[in-house]
Amino acid sequence: MIRIVKRTLRWLAFEHGVAKGLYRRICKPTGEELGDFLRRYGRFHHLGEHVSLRPWTNIPDPQYVSIGNNVQLTHCSIFAHDGSIAMLNRAYNVKLDRVDRVVIKDNVYIGHQAIVLPGVTIGPNALVAAGAVVSKDVAEGDIVAGVPARPVGRLDKLVEKLREQTSQLPWAELIEQREGAFDPDMEPQLERYRISYFFGSESTSRW
Amino acid sequence: MIRIVKRTLRWLAFEHGVAKGLYRRICKPTGEELGDFLRRYGRFHHLGEHVSLRPWTNIPDPQYVSIGNNVQLTHCSIFAHDGSIAMLNRAYNVKLDRVDRVVIKDNVYIGHQAIVLPGVTIGPNALVAAGAVVSKDVAEGDIVAGVPARPVGRLDKLVEKLREQTSQLPWAELIEQREGAFDPDMEPQLERYRISYFFGSESTSRW
Amino acid sequence: MIRIVKRTLRWLAFEHGVAKGLYRRICKPTGEELGDFLRRYGRFHHLGEHVSLRPWTNIPDPQYVSIGNNVQLTHCSIFAHDGSIAMLNRAYNVKLDRVDRVVIKDNVYIGHQAIVLPGVTIGPNALVAAGAVVSKDVAEGDIVAGVPARPVGRLDKLVEKLREQTSQLPWAELIEQREGAFDPDMEPQLERYRISYFFGSESTSRW
Repeated sequence: MIRIVKRTLRWLAFEHGVAKGLYRRICKPTGEELGDFLRRYGRFHHLGEHVSLRPWTNIPDPQYVSIGNNVQLTHCSIFAHDGSIAMLNRAYNVKLDRVDRVVIKDNVYIGHQAIVLPGVTIGPNALVAAGAVVSKDVAEGDIVAGVPARPVGRLDKLVEKLREQTSQLPWAELIEQREGAFDPDMEPQLERYRISYFFGSESTSRW
Repeated sequence: MIRIVKRTLRWLAFEHGVAKGLYRRICKPTGEELGDFLRRYGRFHHLGEHVSLRPWTNIPDPQYVSIGNNVQLTHCSIFAHDGSIAMLNRAYNVKLDRVDRVVIKDNVYIGHQAIVLPGVTIGPNALVAAGAVVSKDVAEGDIVAGVPARPVGRLDKLVEKLREQTSQLPWAELIEQREGAFDPDMEPQLERYRISYFFGSESTSRW
Repeated sequence: MIRIVKRTLRWLAFEHGVAKGLYRRICKPTGEELGDFLRRYGRFHHLGEHVSLRPWTNIPDPQYVSIGNNVQLTHCSIFAHDGSIAMLNRAYNVKLDRVDRVVIKDNVYIGHQAIVLPGVTIGPNALVAAGAVVSKDVAEGDIVAGVPARPVGRLDKLVEKLREQTSQLPWAELIEQREGAFDPDMEPQLERYRISYFFGSESTSRW
């Protein structure tokens, strides 16, 4: 019953652009499904393939935002306008305008609570760490972090390190078989492996 | 019909202090209307004219907060109490109290996710950048940014720079005619100008 | 009537694990009651006594998180997984896994919007300031702040300073009599004391 309602809502939203708010609230689309939905209805200047967004990804001016392929946006904010203009106009009796584009290129991850400011271009192949405030362009291949965001590493080196670390895990063989970053069928087994590795067989009371 | 409901809800909330939660949820007041509403019902120690707040502006102790005129508060947090006291009291078997006032003077903007801590005075004529954590007073005319927030510039210099930049925009003439920072009638034309300027006439696929 | 509904909802949720979402939405449990509830139903690896959480405390992987006694979690985030893996796997055609435990020991406070990253151990007796991004262990007794978080002080020194400050307050006698960090019966009197001390007898218009 619920499945039919959800399928109908999804069909209405995707094919007819109807009941879009209801669709998002009831169907709770996954990150990539939300990306597919917003490619059609999100008013973005451009939004590529395999873009994952969260329900709370905060992009108030999508018409000035261009997003490439394989981009993961968490609970972050992307601003194309400067919100202080109204206060400045009244305080200094001036008439200012401050809107600029934001360009996110291919293969970019933007972490939790990160903020991207107007005029910024990020990537390709770049990572913005959680909590970073990005006020300048992020170069191809860079990892940036901090307030304001500064380069702290290179993405290809990070991938090399993570490959090494993954190969050492007791459950490395399972990961080798996994498609993508999450497999619901494999997850219970991974969870048992991980909990035993992280916390051992001791009782939980030792913490 | 909906318009009549909204007008009635607004009237009930503003004139009789009734159904205030419903008013905020249904009528979705603009930032300044919410300021007018909270001046009357928000329990602030003081809240001036032309104060703009967002639905998620987070001010748990308004009775200890004083806000001047022409202040813009985004999705930020202003704390007049120190939340760690309960933990400290139990851990160290002490009886501490840590509540202090927060004073925001005239012509202040506080950016997205910024946090203002107890005891702080900000402004007048000051700007707190997005993501800043303000643990010390912000002097008149200063721009602060970072964690913890430090002075990074002067507001009058920023206004001078923005005036110069605004005058160079292809749509500078429109801005000269605009009242305030947003004119719904002018916005579609501004949007066409901006998109063409930011992204050119090329297809969106170049990103 | 409402009280009976709430009591019934609480009973159903606590004793039978039924209607847990409704319980949280309708009963709006206090921080410690939510801790008691999540100790039973939150899927945490371990969650101790006197743990206080907020409705928006963000812990997406509780099975890999261990939390001690007397811990206060505000509107913060604790991540046991690295969200960028999906993007990296697709961009570099690799198969990475990056999940690690998080251990919060006894007597810890984690401030507003702070972010704790996978692999971190905090405390005991530690304080994470608002807005901090914790990517490394926090040693026993340390106060950390900033992005990334670095030690900025010692908790026992802070408690000593706050004891001194509390003893100087005009309402110090009341605090001496108070149990815990909040007493609803005492609060109105404390509020009068504080407002008079913070803002004096002058009209509010001086700000």
